Amino acid sequence: MTKATSGSLPADLALTDPLGVARLLIRQPSVSPDPGESQHLLGAMLERLGFTVTHLPFGEGAERTPNLFARLGEGAPHICYAGHTDVVPAGNEADWTHPPFAADVVDGVLYGRGACDMKGGIAACVAAIARRVQSGVGKGSISLLITGDEEGPATYGTQKVLEWMAVQGQIPDYCLVGEPTNPQTLGEMVKVGRRGSLNARIVVEGTQGHVAYPHRADNPVHRLLAVLAVLRAAPLDHGSEYFEPSSLQVTSLDVGNTATNLIPARAEARLNIRFNDLHTGAALGGWIKTVCAQHAPRAQVEISISGESFFAPPGAEMAVLQEAITSVTGLSPKLDTGGGTSDARFIARYCPVAEFGLVGASIHKVDEHAAVADMEKLTRIYEAFLKGVGV
Amino acid sequence: MTKATSGSLPADLALTDPLGVARLLIRQPSVSPDPGESQHLLGAMLERLGFTVTHLPFGEGAERTPNLFARLGEGAPHICYAGHTDVVPAGNEADWTHPPFAADVVDGVLYGRGACDMKGGIAACVAAIARRVQSGVGKGSISLLITGDEEGPATYGTQKVLEWMAVQGQIPDYCLVGEPTNPQTLGEMVKVGRRGSLNARIVVEGTQGHVAYPHRADNPVHRLLAVLAVLRAAPLDHGSEYFEPSSLQVTSLDVGNTATNLIPARAEARLNIRFNDLHTGAALGGWIKTVCAQHAPRAQVEISISGESFFAPPGAEMAVLQEAITSVTGLSPKLDTGGGTSDARFIARYCPVAEFGLVGASIHKVDEHAAVADMEKLTRIYEAFLKGVGV
Repeated sequence: MTKATSGSLPADLALTDPLGVARLLIRQPSVSPDPGESQHLLGAMLERLGFTVTHLPFGEGAERTPNLFARLGEGAPHICYAGHTDVVPAGNEADWTHPPFAADVVDGVLYGRGACDMKGGIAACVAAIARRVQSGVGKGSISLLITGDEEGPATYGTQKVLEWMAVQGQIPDYCLVGEPTNPQTLGEMVKVGRRGSLNARIVVEGTQGHVAYPHRADNPVHRLLAVLAVLRAAPLDHGSEYFEPSSLQVTSLDVGNTATNLIPARAEARLNIRFNDLHTGAALGGWIKTVCAQHAPRAQVEISISGESFFAPPGAEMAVLQEAITSVTGLSPKLDTGGGTSDARFIARYCPVAEFGLVGASIHKVDEHAAVADMEKLTRIYEAFLKGVGV
Repeated sequence: MTKATSGSLPADLALTDPLGVARLLIRQPSVSPDPGESQHLLGAMLERLGFTVTHLPFGEGAERTPNLFARLGEGAPHICYAGHTDVVPAGNEADWTHPPFAADVVDGVLYGRGACDMKGGIAACVAAIARRVQSGVGKGSISLLITGDEEGPATYGTQKVLEWMAVQGQIPDYCLVGEPTNPQTLGEMVKVGRRGSLNARIVVEGTQGHVAYPHRADNPVHRLLAVLAVLRAAPLDHGSEYFEPSSLQVTSLDVGNTATNLIPARAEARLNIRFNDLHTGAALGGWIKTVCAQHAPRAQVEISISGESFFAPPGAEMAVLQEAITSVTGLSPKLDTGGGTSDARFIARYCPVAEFGLVGASIHKVDEHAAVADMEKLTRIYEAFLKGVGV
């Protein structure tokens, strides 16, 4: 645990300006896992605002992951803002119209890797807090939980920080994750849960033979097809109150037999299930193994659950957030649970959580960008939310 | 068309002895396509017996295939014996207990590549004819149709010789193919037809996408699974009088996608159908294309028919053959249509055909072998058959 220093921070930086904060963060090319500089920069900003900042690197060697926990005040409610400083790779930089780490602003749009996922969101949070500090905070307190490995395996990131926070008595009353949740327009969508994700690899061994004598062979392809037919025979469900139907996608089939007269010895399938709150990863994994045992007793089944589904029932804080969004954007946000996974799945084990950030249409693509006007609106939404919940 | 010379034939070779003839042929390592020497040797033997021998190489360059047509006498019935001098490769010669081209005889067993498939069969035919010539042939005539490419693509072999025979007015009244037809014991099985064989390659193009958003993608794996489910939903048939049920085997599935979160763009399947006389290759190919059009409209389907099924209804000659087999072996041969394909599928288009030869248990394996006693029995069966049909 090392304390940050604010030595590297420009003296004239206005922390109330989300654009200036975002440009500074984007110019630290913190491709996952973040090497750490952008978190030290962020820590310096938060110290200037009065936060107590703790850097929490976890993991060793190539897995070493920088993380940051910072808290301002001690009172209740304790509201936590969670996010990540790491970004996905830029890919071929020559494909970018604006260099990915230059943070160019053209025609009211900020370009750069992380502009919306999610240095722009963090910047809006910093600016909102700076404005609350200027106008006088309430009796509540605020913390930031920032990881440097959300886009990677996420093993030594948010999960480990939460364990540390639990030991330290720092579990918040409510957590807002700043991931980009709006598909096209700021204000249209808040995430209140996420589907779980399960990967399965099924390898069926058979008995090789000549196609002219199938009774002397045991075709593993046919057994695999029987397994997949059962797994795909019916929808997993028809959705629930806040969730889309679960989805099973077979992502690969592999045999690699080029001999037309040969029944192969081995066949393999890979599949992914995105599942809602009607399932658990363990139950789905058990179901897959049972189907394999019935139709391909010699199958080897590997199950990997990269995240359970979760759902945070909307409460008082959500009403405040919705009101803040509507007051700034004029929109009534949809409470949604679709899309990929996020670190909110870890946080949901400890406290109520919701996700709201910038527009996500350009994330993980070349020319990732965020409208400067959206960054200002998001800052005002976060500011109104913090004020509304008493921070 | 070149006439053979008998210059290379040992003067003391007894053509009535199938073992001596077989050993001479096996010592010519005529791996498919036969380079030609074994056919010149065979031609010389047949000329010594009074045959008119015509060598019929077809194809150019690497595809050049030696073939031989030889006829003794002009009378009816004209009985043709068909076979091949080419053999499959020996594989790793070190795996053989007896060198594959040495034609060793140990404990009454002849070892060598081609011992039963089918230089041993040809040798029994030569010996049977030599005995008929010694004892005085009947009013009928006999021919040999020998190709050097039955184990390979068979493009410039039996098919081309048959076309030539048709032009020359040499189509026989009946044809006996000397392939090894007995699974374990000489006399147990005559082939009276063969199943057809069709290969299909189905390539389904889809639309790539993230597994979390399947509605934005078009999973080609799911379309392929739907196609295969319909193709495999019901047996193709339940067999016919002389045929086993047709069999569809999916021999490969290939996607090659290792990303667990990606719906792939392309999926491929290969399948083989061994079909009986209730189907034609064209009808099966059309069925596959129709199913693909319904469930995977963007599928590309390649159909390759390597042989139609055929069936030669047992007639008078079959009765003679069965009687000959029973008189020599004491067994009543089963009339069968199973197993792989043979050049009989080409001959069946021109005249009635049946197949009877040695025991096939060791074909295409290391230490291919034939019992010397079986070779003598087969010679006596062929001799009795020829005499019985009037040759």
